[in-house]
Amino acid sequence: MSTLDIVGLCGSLRAASLNRMVLKLAASSMPQGMAMEVVEWRDVPPFDADLLAAQGMPPQVAALRERIRRADGVVIATPEYNFSIPGMLKNAIDWISRGEDQPFSQMPVALLSATPGPRGGAGVQYDLRKVLLYVNAMTLVKPEVFVGDAAAKFDAAGLCTDESTRRVVTGQMEAFAKWIAAVQRMN
Amino acid sequence: MSTLDIVGLCGSLRAASLNRMVLKLAASSMPQGMAMEVVEWRDVPPFDADLLAAQGMPPQVAALRERIRRADGVVIATPEYNFSIPGMLKNAIDWISRGEDQPFSQMPVALLSATPGPRGGAGVQYDLRKVLLYVNAMTLVKPEVFVGDAAAKFDAAGLCTDESTRRVVTGQMEAFAKWIAAVQRMN
Amino acid sequence: MSTLDIVGLCGSLRAASLNRMVLKLAASSMPQGMAMEVVEWRDVPPFDADLLAAQGMPPQVAALRERIRRADGVVIATPEYNFSIPGMLKNAIDWISRGEDQPFSQMPVALLSATPGPRGGAGVQYDLRKVLLYVNAMTLVKPEVFVGDAAAKFDAAGLCTDESTRRVVTGQMEAFAKWIAAVQRMN
Amino acid sequence: MSTLDIVGLCGSLRAASLNRMVLKLAASSMPQGMAMEVVEWRDVPPFDADLLAAQGMPPQVAALRERIRRADGVVIATPEYNFSIPGMLKNAIDWISRGEDQPFSQMPVALLSATPGPRGGAGVQYDLRKVLLYVNAMTLVKPEVFVGDAAAKFDAAGLCTDESTRRVVTGQMEAFAKWIAAVQRMN
Repeated sequence: MSTLDIVGLCGSLRAASLNRMVLKLAASSMPQGMAMEVVEWRDVPPFDADLLAAQGMPPQVAALRERIRRADGVVIATPEYNFSIPGMLKNAIDWISRGEDQPFSQMPVALLSATPGPRGGAGVQYDLRKVLLYVNAMTLVKPEVFVGDAAAKFDAAGLCTDESTRRVVTGQMEAFAKWIAAVQRMN
Repeated sequence: MSTLDIVGLCGSLRAASLNRMVLKLAASSMPQGMAMEVVEWRDVPPFDADLLAAQGMPPQVAALRERIRRADGVVIATPEYNFSIPGMLKNAIDWISRGEDQPFSQMPVALLSATPGPRGGAGVQYDLRKVLLYVNAMTLVKPEVFVGDAAAKFDAAGLCTDESTRRVVTGQMEAFAKWIAAVQRMN
Repeated sequence: MSTLDIVGLCGSLRAASLNRMVLKLAASSMPQGMAMEVVEWRDVPPFDADLLAAQGMPPQVAALRERIRRADGVVIATPEYNFSIPGMLKNAIDWISRGEDQPFSQMPVALLSATPGPRGGAGVQYDLRKVLLYVNAMTLVKPEVFVGDAAAKFDAAGLCTDESTRRVVTGQMEAFAKWIAAVQRMN
Repeated sequence: MSTLDIVGLCGSLRAASLNRMVLKLAASSMPQGMAMEVVEWRDVPPFDADLLAAQGMPPQVAALRERIRRADGVVIATPEYNFSIPGMLKNAIDWISRGEDQPFSQMPVALLSATPGPRGGAGVQYDLRKVLLYVNAMTLVKPEVFVGDAAAKFDAAGLCTDESTRRVVTGQMEAFAKWIAAVQRMN
């Protein structure tokens, strides 16, 4: 059986993003037979239907759509901005959702969010679930992962020092592996 | 008494956007003593906290924040993308929300949305209200304006040909004038 | 292989409820090997934590919880009241969610909504998905079923006269059968 | 100038509800010229459109609607059940929203929520704001009041022992008085 190919997307563009650390924790917490590539989407341009009509899908978007389409699953770790989805992450989804062969359709997705404050990102995750439902993704139901007070849970090298967080993320990745298998059997 | 200065923001970057037409309809439906300037925000860069830390507020963002701060009110007309806020509009709000003198704080805001389909944008308006609440804006409660089947309601010059839509938008702008006065008295 | 046992819950208490008709349509549109019992919950009392503490789970609630726990899946057809979940349906979920052996945990659920107007109930379905996520239910992702203009789609006997609606509901029930199998394999 | 007459509604039916304590704190934190009566709604029956059609508005509902219509404002303090509105509180709103002379229309409303856990109820408040918007209420924008870890902030007699909570609630009631005046001037 071949390795499950997982695309990791970080909702923040910041280099030292807590959510980037969470994404790497997820990558290193996966069960055997599953591997994540963190895919950068910084160069996705602003969505503009005129641009799409005049020039077709921009190459950065086409590449991102193609990369996701090839994957067996997508893991998104994202901060919460103003109680909802970071605008640029939503912009990337807006682009991805357009045109033929929409790559999120039937795609297994797992969500994590980390915040410096205690809440851990319920606002962003519920909005993102709604958007992902709209683009026909198969978002993992449980376990949900909210990493509150995240700055205290990673060291200077970006490694997780909190045993409980490690355990929760490991459990989610195990559930995600089963989820991917279940979705593949259904399709 | 001086003219109320209203900033108009269109949630779509498309030149022939139906929401741009709705925004112009709102501008031309205002009561006396109120005038809208449609402000472009296309050049606002992707929000990146590293950029903010290294270089401060980018000049396009600083200008937009300053323009909003000077205004007496903001009118937003926006499409719905994937059942929520267009990513780039959210990105602009993410930038605007940062730093000192947050310009949406206590700012009267009115929302309109237009969609080609029949629903008219309830998904985007409820999410946007939540985000605007978070940045402390004073969003007009009623009347709500949802322009469904919008393509049939504007002519080739972008002028509204639907009497009912004109009436609803005029009513909202009258309510918005009262709302601005009420918020100013409260502050 | 034994028949899949499905509990049907109608979100409206009205006898001639359009959603009751939709629920019956779902019952009669199931693939072989799947049967629905519509379960009444009218007698569930108002949720009151004092009542729970003093007398334990009321018998109507205990019976409803037990009935759901025995099921292989739950189908909910519900109207939208004031852009969200009917209060009494939410009250039933509030009771069901309490105590040991929470019966929605890992339970496959499918949602349908019907409205007299054109929108078909997006407001209620997104709120209900959020609540069901919170109680750990496994809500079917797709296809979503929104029956707008529902009064015109059922005859005086409550039978569906709209071929397109029949097809969509049949498709959802087929997907639900696969979903139940997938969830059972995952558990 | 006559005293502003405020109706207080508690979202929980429990006698020792933390939200009842918060409601009383709000009542005792009002500026001069403003007085709250906490109105019980326990006897409101389950909403059933058949009952409404056959017998008209039940007397408990008619009385509640009439009491609210006479008020200058409504304060709601509510727990969060399953990340949303308590079912019975929503049921009361479902009844109130029906028929002529809908009493929430143009009615100033202030929201508070208390939870035993740290989050304080963002889930319930955003859903409730959406519902209140739908029934045309004028919900106070800011300040929002979320009382997290509430059990530690009230003594055995139900009095608030947390100075910061007192200050926030007092500030909200002062803002609510200004809000009521502003809404009255607008109407």
